[in-house]
Amino acid sequence: MVRWKATIAYDGTHFSGWQVQPGKRTVQGELEKGLTKLHKGKNKKVVASGRTDAHVHARGQVVHFDSGLQIAGDRWPWAFASVLPPDMQVLSAVPVSDDFHARHDAKAKEYRYFLRVGPEHDLFQRHYVYHAYKNTFDHASVQRSLQLLVGTHDFSAFCASNTPVQNKVRTLDCATYMHIAENAWCFRLQGNGFLYNMVRIIVGTAIDIGLRRLNVEDMGRILQSRDRREAGKTAPGHGLYLWKVYYAP
Amino acid sequence: MVRWKATIAYDGTHFSGWQVQPGKRTVQGELEKGLTKLHKGKNKKVVASGRTDAHVHARGQVVHFDSGLQIAGDRWPWAFASVLPPDMQVLSAVPVSDDFHARHDAKAKEYRYFLRVGPEHDLFQRHYVYHAYKNTFDHASVQRSLQLLVGTHDFSAFCASNTPVQNKVRTLDCATYMHIAENAWCFRLQGNGFLYNMVRIIVGTAIDIGLRRLNVEDMGRILQSRDRREAGKTAPGHGLYLWKVYYAP
Repeated sequence: MVRWKATIAYDGTHFSGWQVQPGKRTVQGELEKGLTKLHKGKNKKVVASGRTDAHVHARGQVVHFDSGLQIAGDRWPWAFASVLPPDMQVLSAVPVSDDFHARHDAKAKEYRYFLRVGPEHDLFQRHYVYHAYKNTFDHASVQRSLQLLVGTHDFSAFCASNTPVQNKVRTLDCATYMHIAENAWCFRLQGNGFLYNMVRIIVGTAIDIGLRRLNVEDMGRILQSRDRREAGKTAPGHGLYLWKVYYAP
Repeated sequence: MVRWKATIAYDGTHFSGWQVQPGKRTVQGELEKGLTKLHKGKNKKVVASGRTDAHVHARGQVVHFDSGLQIAGDRWPWAFASVLPPDMQVLSAVPVSDDFHARHDAKAKEYRYFLRVGPEHDLFQRHYVYHAYKNTFDHASVQRSLQLLVGTHDFSAFCASNTPVQNKVRTLDCATYMHIAENAWCFRLQGNGFLYNMVRIIVGTAIDIGLRRLNVEDMGRILQSRDRREAGKTAPGHGLYLWKVYYAP
């Protein structure tokens, strides 16, 4: 039996998120179904670095699983391709030590959130980019506001209020906002851990700043408040991508 | 009653092409259904510049329709948005003379075809870009081969063999192949008219040249042959976009 660490991508559009739920199509469910098929029906489980919500995409989710199959690392993507639906994909797989754990061992994660700003809708982006239908948007203030979040803070204000987690202190290593194409902008957030909905609440609040419903300084005030009600709306899932998960080398 | 010329976009992924077919979801069908709804159930018809096949997209398809509704040009997109599914969109509408005809009056059309070249699959592009899974691809030869098609020719070799059209002479004004991003290339073909599957057969043949199954000079030989069997495969519909339709000013 070998433990494998696999990097996977998925288009979240037609998934009810990562975690198995009865009667729903989930990424974990489809991945375990495919893996079970490769193992001739023997029930297989996978463990991810963390959950993602409905409609959230992944370019670099990481999972681990155990297998007795004699498949070389570079053949796993091909093996999976034969049993997985077209909206998910195993990008790579490497053998790891038996005690590797995709969630416990994750040191940091990078999320990206794609935003379109402008009055014209682009239907080809409807599942992949969040659209703010505005002509005027204060991009510079969005950029500056994010800097107020970098560092180690109690991020309670940016955490869904129904979360059971006690310790809401996290370290955000990087929070940038880049112009990537005409009308297209990208948030990039990297940190040692993210609370439930944290990226989407930060983005929702930053969008309020872009729309001048809030000022740059409000971002700091909201962080200090530790009160979810002070922050902006949770931005929709379809603009969000789990981009990369970092492990100790 | 006013005749309207409307420019529309659609994501062809979940459509069985433009034309109404019993039991199938088509762009024309959805558009007429929406228009009929706006007219309180009074049956409405639309005429397009031409058909598109299953999975083929449009950024600038043009249609005409007649309406007695008092809707200003810049309000039509909003009116349609309330009755159309999210994978199609009316971009603009202008009033035209009663004898305007979207198909008969079209002077030229531009198609674009998006190609990804390289061993790595990108699942987010699976419905929007055709993927040639190769490391080596002779882009320069593709570019040169297209130049042999520019001008007025009998394009029988690049027309689906079951087409009833007699006169297969068309003028191709422009045929270019551009590198647009990492691993991403775009064919752009503009002409006064296109035969059935003409763009997709030209692209399929050009891809054979890129893969070195054919030489640059073969493109000229195939054109001269006027024989569909000499050309390459019809490239898949999902890489193709009806980009723009030109009318006399």
